Amino acid sequence: MASATTPLLADDRRNSTASSENDASSNRSGPRWVFRLREVLLFAWALLATAGVLIMAVWMSHKSQTDSSKPPGKRNLIFMVSDGMGPASLSMTRSFRQYTEGLEYGDTLTLDKHFWGSSRTRSASSLITDSAAGATAFSCAKKSYNGAISMLPDHTPCGTVLEAAKRAGYMTGLVVTTDVTDATPACFSSHVDVRSQNDEIALQQVGDGALERVVDLMFGGGRCHFLPNTTQGSCRADDIDVVSIAKEKFGWTYTDNRAGFDDLWEGRSEVPLPMLGLFASTDVPFELDRRNMNNVYPSLSEMAKTALKALEKATEDSDQGFFLMIEGSRIDHAGHYNDPAAQVHEVVEYDKTFQAVLDFLDESKTEGVLVATSDHETGGLSVAKQLNSDYPEYLWYPGVLANASSSSEYLAIKLHQHIASSAKNGTSKKGLKAYINEELVKAGLGVRDATDAELAEIVSNPEKAQDLMAKIISRRAEIGWSSHGHSAVDVNIYSSGGSGTDAIRGNVENTEVGDFLRNYISVDVEGVTEELRKKYRRRSKMAATKLAATVESSSREDHWAAHEDLAMGQMDGSY
Amino acid sequence: MASATTPLLADDRRNSTASSENDASSNRSGPRWVFRLREVLLFAWALLATAGVLIMAVWMSHKSQTDSSKPPGKRNLIFMVSDGMGPASLSMTRSFRQYTEGLEYGDTLTLDKHFWGSSRTRSASSLITDSAAGATAFSCAKKSYNGAISMLPDHTPCGTVLEAAKRAGYMTGLVVTTDVTDATPACFSSHVDVRSQNDEIALQQVGDGALERVVDLMFGGGRCHFLPNTTQGSCRADDIDVVSIAKEKFGWTYTDNRAGFDDLWEGRSEVPLPMLGLFASTDVPFELDRRNMNNVYPSLSEMAKTALKALEKATEDSDQGFFLMIEGSRIDHAGHYNDPAAQVHEVVEYDKTFQAVLDFLDESKTEGVLVATSDHETGGLSVAKQLNSDYPEYLWYPGVLANASSSSEYLAIKLHQHIASSAKNGTSKKGLKAYINEELVKAGLGVRDATDAELAEIVSNPEKAQDLMAKIISRRAEIGWSSHGHSAVDVNIYSSGGSGTDAIRGNVENTEVGDFLRNYISVDVEGVTEELRKKYRRRSKMAATKLAATVESSSREDHWAAHEDLAMGQMDGSY
Repeated sequence: MASATTPLLADDRRNSTASSENDASSNRSGPRWVFRLREVLLFAWALLATAGVLIMAVWMSHKSQTDSSKPPGKRNLIFMVSDGMGPASLSMTRSFRQYTEGLEYGDTLTLDKHFWGSSRTRSASSLITDSAAGATAFSCAKKSYNGAISMLPDHTPCGTVLEAAKRAGYMTGLVVTTDVTDATPACFSSHVDVRSQNDEIALQQVGDGALERVVDLMFGGGRCHFLPNTTQGSCRADDIDVVSIAKEKFGWTYTDNRAGFDDLWEGRSEVPLPMLGLFASTDVPFELDRRNMNNVYPSLSEMAKTALKALEKATEDSDQGFFLMIEGSRIDHAGHYNDPAAQVHEVVEYDKTFQAVLDFLDESKTEGVLVATSDHETGGLSVAKQLNSDYPEYLWYPGVLANASSSSEYLAIKLHQHIASSAKNGTSKKGLKAYINEELVKAGLGVRDATDAELAEIVSNPEKAQDLMAKIISRRAEIGWSSHGHSAVDVNIYSSGGSGTDAIRGNVENTEVGDFLRNYISVDVEGVTEELRKKYRRRSKMAATKLAATVESSSREDHWAAHEDLAMGQMDGSY
Repeated sequence: MASATTPLLADDRRNSTASSENDASSNRSGPRWVFRLREVLLFAWALLATAGVLIMAVWMSHKSQTDSSKPPGKRNLIFMVSDGMGPASLSMTRSFRQYTEGLEYGDTLTLDKHFWGSSRTRSASSLITDSAAGATAFSCAKKSYNGAISMLPDHTPCGTVLEAAKRAGYMTGLVVTTDVTDATPACFSSHVDVRSQNDEIALQQVGDGALERVVDLMFGGGRCHFLPNTTQGSCRADDIDVVSIAKEKFGWTYTDNRAGFDDLWEGRSEVPLPMLGLFASTDVPFELDRRNMNNVYPSLSEMAKTALKALEKATEDSDQGFFLMIEGSRIDHAGHYNDPAAQVHEVVEYDKTFQAVLDFLDESKTEGVLVATSDHETGGLSVAKQLNSDYPEYLWYPGVLANASSSSEYLAIKLHQHIASSAKNGTSKKGLKAYINEELVKAGLGVRDATDAELAEIVSNPEKAQDLMAKIISRRAEIGWSSHGHSAVDVNIYSSGGSGTDAIRGNVENTEVGDFLRNYISVDVEGVTEELRKKYRRRSKMAATKLAATVESSSREDHWAAHEDLAMGQMDGSY
């Protein structure tokens, strides 16, 4: 014990000190000076070592923070969904961009630079999910059946990360390019048994649901679901005026046009929240077409930037930040339509939006994370298509996509308008083929060598014009599709990185992305589920049984087909 | 300064001590005891703080080691290539395995658990690479033209990581399930202008090339390229006996059968190196078929395990470890054949092999890394196929694949054999349809509802039997394909993790995988390139021009078609 406590600094003087202990009076100042020096040196040592411990502790804590978990504080969470974008879309869009902009092969998309992992997408009811079950996996972090809008397989509602964020004092937003009542945004802000219940979704989204208002900002399309069927431009089954309810009962500011949007553009003026901006009757046009209608519709990146500014401003003096979901909704539609030219422009715009969010995070004073993924792949897209049964070529042609100035969707609508007006004027069928070739196929698709058989098929089947024109361009670009529906391939995850994002590195289940979202902002989603269940308990068992039957039949419906009907229905409209 | 050096432990006694400084003699033992105690406490503090610093320093050093860089030393590098495996193959195989083994959806493949990133695959000559340019990106870390076997676009050879490893004292091995002269293994061990130069590749691989012998172990198929065309089972254009040259000139031990392999199996006896094991005339049968011919052909995992043991043993007393390339070669062929049943079994076997390598690394005393990726996707596989033009279903049927007990390749060969023997016996065409349905489609494909039209088409086009049978099974499983060739989708990267593997996280160019390989074992690949160039300089400009013309025509050839010819040629053989 003695040796263990012997000061390491003790020197020769120690012995003299010890030996002189009984002779202190004769050598008073010597030992005292030694003791004092020894004490100072010991103290200096202890202090230095302690400082070392503190410095290392701070450094380690900093390191572990940057590795995994920053201390809880104000946070912004931006979640992006590239609906229907599978791995092949990236390769196709990257090469398209390199081709059109004359870039080297190493000049990749912003997304590529933030590749994080991949997500498995199957739903509770099928190996191939739809967007509803896909988004429920993100919003509730639970697997459910195809068609479910934040409802579990037992038809009880599950709380969503957006609802819990709102309850916790966050501001919340949804930015999409399709109907805001469509599956992905609906899953964050409503609870219905089947996705086709758009009328009910619209009501819940503005606040007329079990939880009242949980969304602070919505930008997108789908205006028709908010207007009573007594007015033009409505697609509701009832005469409920959701816009009026939103404004009068829940205090929303509403705009339905580009001019209204431009007033808010990137914080030009303060955005009054809650803010509902519905810029299209159904879908915002494909970016390929929207570019030519820029005075009518804002782009995804424009809407996203404005939403970011608005939510940042609104949370400026708050302890909590915001949760914003941004969806590149129509990548999916381009997949359903099997239209590669429409898709590459959708993905480029999504990539641009991803960069805009990164820029926002860089400049923001608040800690924030961006996570982006897809709900599923659409179209069974392959960046290769065998034309000759004897031999597959090892190439494809991005230049064919670059030549297109309109989507097959837009051109089909144009054809239907032409046929309708020709019927009045009595134009011949022969004239129709020439019109299709000159005005649609050459001028729109950018294809100058359509065969007579290809053109004749469109003349004979104008109702299939969209699909036939998509085939014309896919064939020449040598781009393959296996379905007009979804496929089961894993989808990519992208992220800005940051606190907790290691949890979604590698290959994860889509529900793990949902887990990340709630964990990052530490919100009590289960509490919301409890609240919802109490409020939904009045629903009788009989009603549930009836609903299950509805689900059975409705989940077989293709929402995309429904969309197509709407798009075709727009013929006489403004689009 | 005084306050800064004031001992923190100083208590009330300090004042009394200080004030009694001039009165020490009257209070001698008091101050001395206090000094002593203070000294002991100070010392204990200093000691504890120092211990803290030391512990934290050790922990931090350990952490940074496990995070990034182990000190340089002996290393083993295992590189696995899943030829032709795109992202969709994983989803398909994962669900197939879950279906057949009754597993939960969260029960994933070993590969899924080691998902690391993705690789862009385009070659120097096309947006869609072939396996030769793909493997050259790995072996030389350079982009080259389709068809190039470790040759650059200017037709000068580039040194490979395997060659440089050999020069640096590593042992080297190649394990494949196709011809060992096929593009992927060839790119690590030879240099020719076009991949079809199998005769030349075989010679270089055994040591009869510019660098002499660089490979220590080769397991796989492709025996026919090593036998002179004067003997049965040769596919050489010349009468060179490569096996004899290998044995006599370069000291190889040679085995051509399962019994010979079993003697070496997992280190049962020491493997004499260099060791050449060619277990099939061309391809080792698909795993789906090989299972039924287990006494004839070893599996990929068996060959890999034996190679690992052999190379470990051979480097036991060396300062350097080994480089081993293992290829799941025929995932690609199943893609070319558009045969989903064959493919899932190939991927399951590859996954099993990946696990075997992980187990090896866990048990090995030598530091090691496993990196696995694909060269490209094959087939334009989609895990979805629309059967009804009106409506795409959101599902697919793994059970259909589970019912298959033979590949379409095997069944087509069986049909050709049957037709050949029927021709002798004069069996009717009507009998042929029944034979196809009962013996091939029902018993082999496991499809019990083939339509008369489907069967009749095979009867009329027996030369297309493989493709037609693959269509029968793909249609019922609802699996889509867009080509019999390759596609441009990015492919997945998998890794055990470990030193330097962060360089290939995220989305990288395939050449960056090549960079990782050479960097991990710190070998001088450029030195090998210099050596090769000196030796190749004798090739005249005229010869180069002539070769360029050969490349032009040969790169259009489909190696898979060549393979098919060989497979069909095996009809009368042992397969």
